[in-house]
Amino acid sequence: MSQQRHGSTPGEAGGVPAFPDLPEATIARLPEYLRALHHLAETGAETVSSEGLAAAAGVNSAKLRKDLSHLGSYGTRGVGYDVSLLVAQIEYILGLDENRAVCLVGVGNLGHALAGYAGFASRGFRVVALFDTDPRKVGEQINGLTVRHIDDLERIAAEESIAIGVIATPPGTAQTVADALVAAGVTSILNFAPGVLSVPSNVDVRKVDLAIELQILSFHEHRKASLTALPGGRSAAASPDKLPDNQKAVGS
Amino acid sequence: MSQQRHGSTPGEAGGVPAFPDLPEATIARLPEYLRALHHLAETGAETVSSEGLAAAAGVNSAKLRKDLSHLGSYGTRGVGYDVSLLVAQIEYILGLDENRAVCLVGVGNLGHALAGYAGFASRGFRVVALFDTDPRKVGEQINGLTVRHIDDLERIAAEESIAIGVIATPPGTAQTVADALVAAGVTSILNFAPGVLSVPSNVDVRKVDLAIELQILSFHEHRKASLTALPGGRSAAASPDKLPDNQKAVGS
Repeated sequence: MSQQRHGSTPGEAGGVPAFPDLPEATIARLPEYLRALHHLAETGAETVSSEGLAAAAGVNSAKLRKDLSHLGSYGTRGVGYDVSLLVAQIEYILGLDENRAVCLVGVGNLGHALAGYAGFASRGFRVVALFDTDPRKVGEQINGLTVRHIDDLERIAAEESIAIGVIATPPGTAQTVADALVAAGVTSILNFAPGVLSVPSNVDVRKVDLAIELQILSFHEHRKASLTALPGGRSAAASPDKLPDNQKAVGS
Repeated sequence: MSQQRHGSTPGEAGGVPAFPDLPEATIARLPEYLRALHHLAETGAETVSSEGLAAAAGVNSAKLRKDLSHLGSYGTRGVGYDVSLLVAQIEYILGLDENRAVCLVGVGNLGHALAGYAGFASRGFRVVALFDTDPRKVGEQINGLTVRHIDDLERIAAEESIAIGVIATPPGTAQTVADALVAAGVTSILNFAPGVLSVPSNVDVRKVDLAIELQILSFHEHRKASLTALPGGRSAAASPDKLPDNQKAVGS
């Protein structure tokens, strides 16, 4: 989920093309559209209707058309969108043609899992460095990379042109690590530690907070329990309104 | 992030209290408010202004006041909110007074990391079972739990009243696992596998998709590079508009 969103203005006059400033929610849906489009391309589809792509991505089609209009992509009435063109447009906007260097700080259980995450490489992100403060971890080999001490961050970040830092440290050290990443020239951070980071306005932060995700699910469980509670305080049976398993997800 | 959001109506007539149907974005911010409030309580603060709480949670204060108004919490002009009362209100809404049983399916690198995640227990979530399909993993002991075969899911889910399932399997098996969880009576799913799950409308899904998070950051990197590109195609220096490290994050 997003931590902060800083406003920005389109490209300056003088020949630089304007880059769309998309709503954060739209940005978050583009990768889902891309995944669905890749699947469609694999099946040989050349075009896709907005309804078809929306269903594959789990959103309603009006929202999808609105999202894609931000990219200047409107589809053709009665036909829909050209799959390979739309793939190219979304990949361009997401900057996926670049191969971006990623570093990971914090090599505990979660860090090990992230360091081994195959999905990074398959999407054009290269994990180029792993850092920790624990001398017992420095020197460990993971996935062909050697864990380095955090003191080497600034030098290695410059050598490798690291743009994205992933923080997988305990909560107490996350801000210090963020400060070090920013000082080393990193301008995007993916934070797995709980809490809100303070960063300059040119640094983007996405956070993945398991505790928050669980609490959100807890809210929904509580709400469902409240809705099924009968007068007098007795609860309904454990599985009140179960629909058949093959029911498609309702678009949001 | 949310996968689907299904509408719901407030409590029925006949004595059941109405449960607020909050916007998903509000629900996602409540745990951040709660974390900030816990820190404030630890420092001995008895009240907090909306501006103070908003700054601690990384949001703007108008948004915070709107969120809390959904809970029927309006604060006192000139004073703000009573910390312990607001903690109680948010914990109630999030259903955190219940101790919810969680199971984890998929015991690879990520599953190991999640099984050892201390944050579950500290927030009233008990990981009560681990499942995998790989016979080499079944029987393995992790954090005091024994990995069981997925065939045992339905029985154990009933015995333990499991409400929340965490999916940490490869992408190809996630839907099958979701189907099994739903059949076993699980009504909330936290999904780490890429892709959109199909579930009945009474099942809530939150997803954590690292690939999407990275692609969102890639968008922001691309946008920043476009904004700093000079006429003639030359890019500005690597760290164009760096602000001092101690600058507070701008509220969203």
